[in-house]
This record gives sequence, C-alpha cells and structure tokens, in this order.
Amino acid sequence: MKRVIKVLEDSLPREVVESPFLDIVSEILRLNEDPNVQGLALDLPESLYSSMVLNAVKPEKDKVLLVGARGAEGAALQSVLRCEGATVLSCHWKSPQLQSELGHADAVVFGSTKPDDVPVSWVKPGATIIHCAHGLLSAKYLYFSEEHNYGQQNNPAAEKTVGSLAVAMRMQNMVKNMERWIQSQQHRKWDLHCLKLQPLSPVPSDIEISRAQSPKAVDVLAKEIGLLTDEIEIYGQTKAKVRLSLLERLKDQPDGKYVLVAGITPTPLGEGKSTVTVGLVQALTAHLNINSFACLRQPSQGPTFGVKGGAAGGGYAQVIPMEEFNLHLTGDIHAITAANNLLAAAIDARILHENTQSDKLHYLKQISHFIALLELTDPETLTEEEISRFVRLDIDPSTITWQRVVDTNDRFLRKITVGQANTEKGFVRQAQFDIAVASEIMAILALTTSLQDMKERLGKMVVANDQKGEPVTAEDLGVTGALAVLMKDAIKPTLMQTLEGTPVFVHAGPFANIAHGNSSVLADKIALKLVGENGFVVTEAGFGADIGMEKFFNIKCRASGLVPSVVVLVATVRALKMHGGGPNVTAGAPLKKEYTEENLQLVADGCCNLQKQIQITQLFGVPVVVALNVFKTDSPAEVDLVCKIAKESGAFDAVPCNHWSAGGRGAIKLAQAVEKAANQKNSFKYLYSLELPIVEKIRIIAQKVYGAQDIELSPVAQSQVDRYTRQGFGNLPICMAKTHLSLSHQPERKGVPTGFILPISEVRASIGAGFIYPLVGTMSTMPGLPTRPCFYDIDLDPITEQVKGLF
Amino acid sequence: MKRVIKVLEDSLPREVVESPFLDIVSEILRLNEDPNVQGLALDLPESLYSSMVLNAVKPEKDKVLLVGARGAEGAALQSVLRCEGATVLSCHWKSPQLQSELGHADAVVFGSTKPDDVPVSWVKPGATIIHCAHGLLSAKYLYFSEEHNYGQQNNPAAEKTVGSLAVAMRMQNMVKNMERWIQSQQHRKWDLHCLKLQPLSPVPSDIEISRAQSPKAVDVLAKEIGLLTDEIEIYGQTKAKVRLSLLERLKDQPDGKYVLVAGITPTPLGEGKSTVTVGLVQALTAHLNINSFACLRQPSQGPTFGVKGGAAGGGYAQVIPMEEFNLHLTGDIHAITAANNLLAAAIDARILHENTQSDKLHYLKQISHFIALLELTDPETLTEEEISRFVRLDIDPSTITWQRVVDTNDRFLRKITVGQANTEKGFVRQAQFDIAVASEIMAILALTTSLQDMKERLGKMVVANDQKGEPVTAEDLGVTGALAVLMKDAIKPTLMQTLEGTPVFVHAGPFANIAHGNSSVLADKIALKLVGENGFVVTEAGFGADIGMEKFFNIKCRASGLVPSVVVLVATVRALKMHGGGPNVTAGAPLKKEYTEENLQLVADGCCNLQKQIQITQLFGVPVVVALNVFKTDSPAEVDLVCKIAKESGAFDAVPCNHWSAGGRGAIKLAQAVEKAANQKNSFKYLYSLELPIVEKIRIIAQKVYGAQDIELSPVAQSQVDRYTRQGFGNLPICMAKTHLSLSHQPERKGVPTGFILPISEVRASIGAGFIYPLVGTMSTMPGLPTRPCFYDIDLDPITEQVKGLF
Repeated sequence: MKRVIKVLEDSLPREVVESPFLDIVSEILRLNEDPNVQGLALDLPESLYSSMVLNAVKPEKDKVLLVGARGAEGAALQSVLRCEGATVLSCHWKSPQLQSELGHADAVVFGSTKPDDVPVSWVKPGATIIHCAHGLLSAKYLYFSEEHNYGQQNNPAAEKTVGSLAVAMRMQNMVKNMERWIQSQQHRKWDLHCLKLQPLSPVPSDIEISRAQSPKAVDVLAKEIGLLTDEIEIYGQTKAKVRLSLLERLKDQPDGKYVLVAGITPTPLGEGKSTVTVGLVQALTAHLNINSFACLRQPSQGPTFGVKGGAAGGGYAQVIPMEEFNLHLTGDIHAITAANNLLAAAIDARILHENTQSDKLHYLKQISHFIALLELTDPETLTEEEISRFVRLDIDPSTITWQRVVDTNDRFLRKITVGQANTEKGFVRQAQFDIAVASEIMAILALTTSLQDMKERLGKMVVANDQKGEPVTAEDLGVTGALAVLMKDAIKPTLMQTLEGTPVFVHAGPFANIAHGNSSVLADKIALKLVGENGFVVTEAGFGADIGMEKFFNIKCRASGLVPSVVVLVATVRALKMHGGGPNVTAGAPLKKEYTEENLQLVADGCCNLQKQIQITQLFGVPVVVALNVFKTDSPAEVDLVCKIAKESGAFDAVPCNHWSAGGRGAIKLAQAVEKAANQKNSFKYLYSLELPIVEKIRIIAQKVYGAQDIELSPVAQSQVDRYTRQGFGNLPICMAKTHLSLSHQPERKGVPTGFILPISEVRASIGAGFIYPLVGTMSTMPGLPTRPCFYDIDLDPITEQVKGLF
Repeated sequence: MKRVIKVLEDSLPREVVESPFLDIVSEILRLNEDPNVQGLALDLPESLYSSMVLNAVKPEKDKVLLVGARGAEGAALQSVLRCEGATVLSCHWKSPQLQSELGHADAVVFGSTKPDDVPVSWVKPGATIIHCAHGLLSAKYLYFSEEHNYGQQNNPAAEKTVGSLAVAMRMQNMVKNMERWIQSQQHRKWDLHCLKLQPLSPVPSDIEISRAQSPKAVDVLAKEIGLLTDEIEIYGQTKAKVRLSLLERLKDQPDGKYVLVAGITPTPLGEGKSTVTVGLVQALTAHLNINSFACLRQPSQGPTFGVKGGAAGGGYAQVIPMEEFNLHLTGDIHAITAANNLLAAAIDARILHENTQSDKLHYLKQISHFIALLELTDPETLTEEEISRFVRLDIDPSTITWQRVVDTNDRFLRKITVGQANTEKGFVRQAQFDIAVASEIMAILALTTSLQDMKERLGKMVVANDQKGEPVTAEDLGVTGALAVLMKDAIKPTLMQTLEGTPVFVHAGPFANIAHGNSSVLADKIALKLVGENGFVVTEAGFGADIGMEKFFNIKCRASGLVPSVVVLVATVRALKMHGGGPNVTAGAPLKKEYTEENLQLVADGCCNLQKQIQITQLFGVPVVVALNVFKTDSPAEVDLVCKIAKESGAFDAVPCNHWSAGGRGAIKLAQAVEKAANQKNSFKYLYSLELPIVEKIRIIAQKVYGAQDIELSPVAQSQVDRYTRQGFGNLPICMAKTHLSLSHQPERKGVPTGFILPISEVRASIGAGFIYPLVGTMSTMPGLPTRPCFYDIDLDPITEQVKGLF
C-alpha cells in the first residue's frame, strides 16, 4: 500500500530541454497514466509555471500538503523536513493546534489554502515559509530567507520573492524518504528515554514510590512511541487520550505479540497479576530494549475509598502517577455513569408518560420526533391504532433489568424503592444501584472496535421486556445518539507510563463478577500497532485463569479477532500453600506461620491448582509461562519446587520474579522466557462454537474448565435460557459469573475440586456487550464500606497539593 | 515589590582594572549590603572565576535560574531570551514538562543542578546550551555553538568549552529588561489574536455556529493572556485548567473592573443574560481592544438532555466548542458527584456499623485511626465510656440532611427508600437524590478562596444531628481529606474561549434554587489579575436581580471581598410586555401576538419591573447599565421607550444590544457604556450586617428587595432558626430560595407586586458553603425528563465524530 508521489523538478538536463513547457507537459501526461504514481509535486522555476503545465495534471492525482497533510505522504514530507532539523507541523488546517504549532515551527509549508487564509502572523519570526497556494497543482513556492522577517514586517510584496533553491533542496529527496519512512514505520524500534529506578529496601509505600519518580511529559512519551501530534489529546501533564484514527493510519502494519497475564486461583489478597503485567513491560522495554505496551483496566473509584486501595500495580512495578490512575483518570467511568443513568431515567420517565397521558397526547407532544423517525409526510393521517403502535413501548416494569449506577461503595443502594414522590403518581417500584463498572456500557466500552460499533451496541442494549415479552432496547427509547455523545471521549484509550517510563494504556474496567473483566479491545489493538511486529502487548485478565482467561479467549478475542501469543500464569507460594491445605487467608488478619515459614509439602500439594490452570490454558492451544511472584518469606527450595513442577506440568517455562522490589530488572528472566515462548508454535482455538445451544456452552465451560461433573439449571434459569433463545440471542458467547476463589462454585473448596454439579441460579444477558451471563450463586454488584474505610487515611496537603494515604 | 538582580559583567573598563579579582570582590561585597539587590548573576570571563570571587556572594542573595526559575527574575531573564527569538523554558526542574520543553528550545539555561542530572540528550540538536552548574554562585557558563552538536555527540570534553561572549550578550541587559518586564506585567494589554466572525442571516443553530468557528489552541490563548506554561493543565485542545499558584504570582497586581450581569424578572424562556455576558466581552476585547474575561457557570449536564438545552450563550455570542462546554467539561461536576456520594455512603455505613457492632469491636476495628486521631500512646487504657465517646457519633437518622446526587434528570429518585437489601439489616430510611449541582459541595466550590479554605469548608459541612441535637459534620465522619482529594482538580477554573477568541473561565454552577447561583470566586479572582487594572471581568448572576444579584452581593462578594464596579441589567421587550399585563409566556408554546407586534402601552406598563430592579441595584451603591437584548420583532419605538424609561429611572445608561445576531460588534455600545460606568463613583455596601438575627436578615431582604410587607415563618422554620442560632450558625448570610418568576413568592404575580407577606416554610443551612437558606415554598432539587426530551435529537456522527442536535 505504498503511495508514491513523483516530484518533477527543475533538474532536467538543460541541454536537452529545447521546449521546456512541452517536455514537462509530456512528462506530466506520462505520469498521469502511471498507476504507481498517486500524486505530483511540481518543483519548478517560476518561469516554467503556466496554466498549460498546471492543467496537465490529472485532478485525481494527490496533492502533497503539509499543513493539512495526513497519512503516509504527509508523514514522508515531514520526515524529510525533520531530518533537516525543522519542527514539522502535522496538524490539520482547521485544527485548533495550528496556531500553537506555527509558533514553534522552523519551517512551515502551507498548502491548499487561499493566500488570505494563511495566518502568517502566527509564524515565528525568521522561520522559513513555503507557500503552495491552491495546492501543489498550482504551486508557487515562496521562500523567505531567515533575514527576511516576514512575521514582523508582513510586507505583501514579499510574497513575490521566490527562492526555489532551498525549496528544491528540501523537496527533492521526498520520494526516497517517503519509502524509507514507510519502511521505518513497519520495523520501528522506539527511541525511548526510560526513567531510572533506584529501588529502596525496605520497599516504601506505593504512593511514596510513585511520588518519588518524575514521569515524562505525556506528549514526549507519545512522540517516542510514534504517535503524531494530532493523534493525542492531552489531559494534564501525565495523561493523554489517543485517537482511534491511528488504527486507520497503521492498518497495514503487522501486529506485535499479544501476551495475556492470568493467574492461578488466588487468595483473597490477590497474587499480583497487575504487578507482573507492569513489571514485565518494564523488563521488556527498559531492560531488553524491546517495544512493549501494558494494557490495564481502569479501576473503579469506589473501592479506592473502601477497602481495596488502588490498582496501579505496586512496589516498583506501577503505573504513575498512581493517584491520577486511581482517581477520575480521564473521566471514562464518569461518562459511563452519566450514560447509564440517562438511560435509566428515560425508562421510568417513559413508563410514567405512557401511563398518564393518552396515546394521542403523547404522540402530539413527540410529533416532531416521529415525523423524523417514521419519515411521515402527513402525520395527521395516522389512525389511533397506528399512533398507539408508534408511541407505546408498553414496558413491563417487572422485567426491567437496567439498573442505575454510582462509582461509590454505597451498600444502602443495593435494594431501594424509587418513585415515591407525589410527582411520580404512584409509579413506585423496587430497583437497585450497581457500582458504575458493573454497567453494561462498561462491558461495551471494553469490547467495542469502533465508534460506529459502539453506537450500534449501545442501541442494542435490552433494558426490559414489553407486555408481550418482546425485548425493549435503548434504541426503542430514542437514546442511542445521546449515549454515544456522552461516550465519545471515553472510547479513546488513555496513555500513561510505568515507573520506568514505558507506555501503558488504561482503558475500560468491566466488573469481573458479572462481565468479562478484561481491559479494552481498542487499547490492545492500538498498542499492537504501535509496538510493531517484534514488539509485545501485555494485558491482564481478572480473577483466576478459569474465569478471566477463559472469558478473555472466548469473549474478548472473539470480539477483536486477535490471536494471543503467550499466556503468563501468575502464581505465589502463598496461594499454592493454601491450595495444598494451608489455613484460611483473610484480608486484614495476619498470615499464619504456614505462610511465613518454609513448608515444601504444602507447596507440592498445592501445585495441583497450578497444574490444572496450565491444563486449562493448553485447552486453548497457547504456550504458557509461569511467573512465580516471589515474596521475601519464600524459601529458595520452595521457589525451585514450584518452577520444577510447573515445567513438568507442561509450562513452556517457569521463572521467579522480583519486580515488586526491583522493578523491571526483577522480571528480566520472565521477559526473556515470554519472548522465547512467543516464537513457539501457536494453535489458538476457542473452546466452543457459538452455534451450540446456551446450555451446551455452559456445560462445556463447567466441565472442561472448572472440572465439574455437570451443570444444573434452576427453573428460573431454564426459562430465561428459553426466552433468550426465542428472542434470538442464543448464539452469543457465555460470560460465567462464578466465584474466583475456587475452581468450583464453592469458595472454600481449594486445590482442584472434582465431582461437583455447578448450579446455575439465573441466566441474564448483556445484549449490547454481546454475551449471556449465567449466575453461579449470588453476585454482589455493589460493594460496601468497611468499618475502617481507606478514606480515613486519605488526605490532601493543601500547600504542596500532594495526595497522602492512597495505596 | 520589584526584585532586582544585579549582573556583574566583564565590561568593567579594562584600564581601571588593575586587580580584577579585588575589584570584583569589593563590588560583590558592596552589593551584598545593598538591600535593593536581591541577587547576583556573575557574568565574567572564566579567568575571573575563583573561589574568592564565588564565596564573596552572600548566601542569602538570590540565584538566577532558568530551568527551575519562577517569579519575576526568571520571567525577566526569559523575556530577554525571548526578545532574541529563543523559546524559553519556564518550567520547574522536576516538572514533567521539562523534556517536552527542552525538545522545543533554541537555547537552554540549566541552573542549580548536578551536571550528571542534566538530560542533555533531551535538548534538540543545534540548540545553545548554557550550563550554570551548581547555580550561579559557582557558575561556569558552557556555550555550545550551533555547529557543536552536543545532543548527538554527548562528548564530556565539550563541557569545558566556554564561549562566554554569547552568554554575555544574552545576559547583559537582564536588569533593564527585568524592570521593563515587571512594568509590563502591571499594565499589560493583551496581544490577542481574535477570531473573525462573519455572521449569517438568518442566524443558524447554536451548534452550527459553534462548529463553523475553529477555536484557537488553548495553550496559545493561555500565553496570549499572560499565563505561564506551568500555570495551565491542558484538557484536550480547547480546554485547560488554570492553577491557583497564579494568584500568588500576581498578588501585587491591581485587580481589573468587576462587572455583574443580572436581569429583570424573566419569562420562563430566559432573557439572555449569558449571551449578554459573552457578547459584552467579545465587544470589549475583540472590538475595543480592552482586556476582558467572562466568568460563567458550568451547566448541569442533566438538563442538557431534558428540556433546557445547553448554556454556553447563544447565536453569535457563545463559548466554543459548545458541546465541550455542555458535556463533562473537565469533570468538575463528576468530581462533586463522587465526593457528595462518598459522604452519603459514609453516613449510612457508619450508622449501620455503630448499631450492629459493640462499641468495643467498632473501636478495635478502627484502632489505627483513633490512635492517630487522638494521639493515643496506650489505646488499651481507655474506659468503655471513653471508647463509646470516641466511636459513637450517634447520628439521628431522621435528621440527615445530606442527600445523594446524580447529574441526570431522574424524577424517580426524588423520593426513595434505601437500605432494603438483607445485608443492611433493616436500616431502611427514606431519602432522595438531588441533581448534582444542588450539592453543597458545588456551593463550596463556588465560594472557596483556596485549597486550604475548601478543605476547611468540606470538613464543616453538617450532614445530620446526633441524638443530643448537636451537629455532625463531614470531619466527624473522617472523610474531609478524601473529599479534598476528589476535589483537588475541580478547584482549578477551566479556560475556554468565546466565538471571537477572547478568554472565558467556566467554573462552578451552584443550583440557583437553593444555593447562590453564581460562578466561582476563584475564577473571578484569577481573571481580575489577568485582565489587569484597566481590564474587565464580566460575570453573571442566575435568575432576576432580586435573587441572583442580591446573593452575588451579600454572599459571593462577602466571601471574596471583591467590590463590583458596574451592574449590567438585562431586559427584553418580551419580558417587559409580560410585566405590563401581556398574556402568559410558556416554554414550547408559540408566542402570542402581543409579543410579536408593536405594543408601546404594554412595554410602558411593564417597565415598572425594570424600574424596581434598578432601584434594587442602587440599594447596593453600584452604577447600573441597562442592556436591552433586542429581538427582531422589537420595534424601534419600543426599544427607544425602554431606554428612555431606564435612564429616567436612574440607570447610568441604557443601550440596545444585538450580540446574538452580530457577535461582539452588536454589543459595542454596551461595552462603551460599561466602560464609562466603571469610572463612576462607587459606594458599594452590603444590604445587612451578619450580626443581625437570622429572621431580621430575612426580613430586610424581603422588604427592601422583594417589596414584601413582612415575612411569616412556619413553626418548623422558626424551630430551625432557633436550632441554627443555638448551634452557633446565626451569623451566616442568607440565601433565599424563592421563585425567579416574580419579585414575590407567587410566580404568577408579574410587574411589581406589593402588600404580600412572604411565607418561609422551612429554613435550612449549608454550613460548609456558609449560608442559611430559607425556603419560600417548595423548591424542586431534581428536574425531570419531559415527554419529548432533547435527547431524541442528540446524535453523534460516528465518522466525523461531530455532535448533532445540541442547542
């Protein structure tokens, strides 16, 4: 897909040019017919310009424009100028950045504009101005020498000054450079300035480590990884949103390797998947000089103030600044909350209005809407029945599945009654608030592949059934466009960086309990282009591999079409001991001595869980590397034992990691193992076909992944399955809502439980996100505040503006 | 407050320098004792440096640093370098912007750093590097010529190269320039690039007008109005937050003129105060070349999707891009929602925990918190009674006044029951959601003067009473710090621009129904510094002057200490006809013919309301200019009549305005009148003393402003007054919650009602915000969605990403 622009220059050998006009015109006519030449830049002495020459160029040929230039041509021309040390504009002519960029530029090429529109006063004094009025097809190059201070004198006569030599010098290598540029785009190794780490011992608190490191300016990071100026939107100094247009620009570039970090069945304390994810990219990029990107979930803000703390990794493997990561970020979750609650308000308001107004009145109030919607020319001609059909959604309030959300741990909103004010005329009903990340809109954000796709998914969301049992969607309520407007910025991934200055995308964080718990498809796709063919994108699946990884493969990879290269399976000696029969591990309580002293037997016994999770990974045909997240209480013998068993169980490799205390340096061996594994044979496949009946798909997951003997649907669940099947939603993938603390549905059953029947109490659907989610037991969708909440410790120094107490 | 840095340079006449060392040292010693000299920059040939010379400088003398330089000295040195065409760094050494800035700079002065820390690789090839290792006290100037490509070669030997001539050239005018710079800071007329308007007729929709104009890059605008690079935080291309540190930098600069836009009693359609505000600054700055700033409220997002539409002004007097203004903005309202709801969740969770755990258990769970809070050394020694006193807030659930909020028009949340899930163990209670802007935290944001002050106000918010009737605050719940953390970015005003490229602050938007309805004190304060002594800051008060303006003077000006210069009172012929006895004006319904045809009698009769509002303004001693917002149906005779009556009624001037259809050009006469009025005698005073009893203050407002005969408190209101007085809140200002559609409490009474008794049904308090708010009738704090909501029309084009249907 190389695009070639030929430059016709005044270097035609003088002696052979008897009739320069005709020679040039004939050359143009020849190039017009050459399908390999997409455009022309005429770089000729002014004397050679004539309407004959200019009109000879086919209108279809591209024009080379710099201000306003996009894609490969513009970038190539920019790269020539960059080689000459100039600051180059890459912004669109109408871009709000134009003035800013002009003020910095050493050379400016204006193209395709009326001379009057050229804001020459914005160009800094002394800069070179190349003015291609009306585009290159009628180009007059105006070159202002550095002595000629155009910006200050603004002398109209100066516009006639032509110094074509300098222009020619800048232009003549264009084609060659463009080809070189396209080449370099495809195999680009970043020239990344990594931040140095000097880890302290003992390891300070997360926020202290984060605060001690000065992040790079995010626009610098963006440039380092090949983003163009107009592809980012800066939010403060350390965060930027990346535009989806990048996917179009780099669409022909091969993807990098795609690495998933999953875990064994964890203790309630978590086994460090996020720190492994961050540590791995720090190792790959800052220590092995390999392009890599971490793609993480945005954490819910609610739990940050409750019991959980932040989610930016930890120790010396963190995303910084961690307080920015954990709070507000770039507002995506707030946008989801706004969109979710607008839809909720629309549902109840619609029911009220339909039931308290005649159909006719309702119709009249909305007539402008219906005229547009139904393309009516004469709205008066509709019969009463037709009117009713149009205005009446007839929502059955008892079937409403759409809940309101807040991003706060507010347990008192778990079950509420709404509509109790007199103004709502008795339309009370029981409802609930979920935590914002449990919104289906969050799941959509994580799975969508474009703005168009997101809009379609938003419209398809089913919020209730009507009185006839047919699904009612967001589109039926007329709210699709408004939801898309509220989500228009949220769809762009947020760029941040690790402690060592390597790039990170933070984007989407669907609730792993009832959704798929993976970060966004779009962030992964963009990152895979940015790292290039030999680079790595590392992302994380929530919970243990039996849940998070299974959903990653069967739901997320299906939505994206991406093929994973390697799975990193995170284990800890602590969790393995628990699976081997160690005592309970509880958040907040001190660890029992089994966990702080060497106990090889417990470790050996617990490795069954690791083994099982390796086998689960192998079901999908992807090589697996075990990352043993080492704690300081782990003995060398314990560490060796785990690695040995892991390798015997089929892992491609198993390596201990010390990124938490040492940063990327502590994960170099893991990075090397991952790189090797990525070159292994890969026979990725989904676990089930979408064509199978819902129940069959659930059974396959339960038996093959969880090791259940069978499944058992409650009558409610069975009728829900029947309904979804009847409504045409039977061929969606399955998103199991099961505890992560056991392979089975019973959190207390550690190791590898067998012989159990998995009970399916309910089956729900997220039609917009595109999955059916069976509930195995009750799933809380609203966390609470504990007696001793984190917010007690969180404080702001009003003088330094520093945040304290986040962890 | 001028700070003077003396430069000792090598231009001492050679012939008189017999012992250059001693000469220089004695000059240094002399300057050490000169109290007018705050610092020294030694600009000498290397041969003249010696420890004797360097050690002679008093440690107290300032060092001139550029990287890391702040305040006047740094800015002066920068201005010298800027005059020479260099891009100058103004960022802090630890700033995340450093790398970005270095990449752009033509010359870099490094100061006060270890040489090893200097990231010379960040400097662009060919740039001049001036390296003052260890600060200027031990300065070695290293000058690298343009040929010497330090950035690429990174040759340590090069650090010895000294080319002092260039350095000397750059430094020698420093003092002179610094003085010039300080001067210019104080009387600076902006060099603003205004955007051209070419108004169309008929006037297109607001979003079409907004989209047709390309805004300036916000960083360009920021520089134009004198903001330093590290004083802004960019949010995308058209919005930036401005740091409060600017108030410290410019604290000695005199304020500009402070103009309030208020209105007569409006029709339900609104009379265009926002468009007047925007049109006025467009006229002042884009047409009269006077520095000016508009300070506007951030609109609630909920009503944007309901019935009201946007609030960015209208026609050719708008803030652009209007979709950014109306949606999300920089997330301030989302931050308020998060903070508000965290506090709400904390209240209910605390009640639950206190009532379901023994005091002892509760204490043990929170022990780390109490140890810190009470500075306990031996927590075991407390008696049961002491423990109870510490852990038990004993909130009386029936007294909770703190409500949850959402930024959505959700009428079904007006009255709800919470806590109905089993997990909440029967602690159900009735509650409500308000629209987010009705949160007291929004009122605090609008009235606060610093981060410290905001934190204090957040802590003081009263959320309920305890069982003994004492107030329980956010601080009692331990949530102050967390609230401040959530609000740390929201406190910074957001910079945007008008259609003509003049600056606008958008900051805070407290609900005018129950709060004071004015934008933030901080935005006004910062804007007053930025416009300078001869500039203008124009802000707006919600509703009619009887409500919005009265609160602006008595509450907002009291909080800020600022003195208004002029009131612009907005009137329309439409509203005046209504007051003169014209038929009802209803949103959505077509206007009756009285409003579309000339009717001088109705206008003349209705001017009583205008007259009364002028008199109200005069109570406060501020000159008033009447702005007649002209509609195309207004006849010239009607317009002349209004202006004549207004002037006869005591207005300083009265002028018709056409900014809606013509932009700033249509408000030039208004701008000229405002400028003249600002130079009038001004005897601003508050209406009442805070020391008066609450009831007395209410009576003064009712009688003097509304024209009531008296007030009448309900028994509930009286007991609330008694309680607040007893609790020590009696000397807060009063924030009346009264309809804006009449001077009285009865919306249907137009003109100037008299003889009425103002009924006070309830009296509430926002202790953190710092006002008592009496309710005159019921005030809805949650709007609803209409049958035909705006969201039907709102859509996003997934290809162009353009928003449609906002108005």
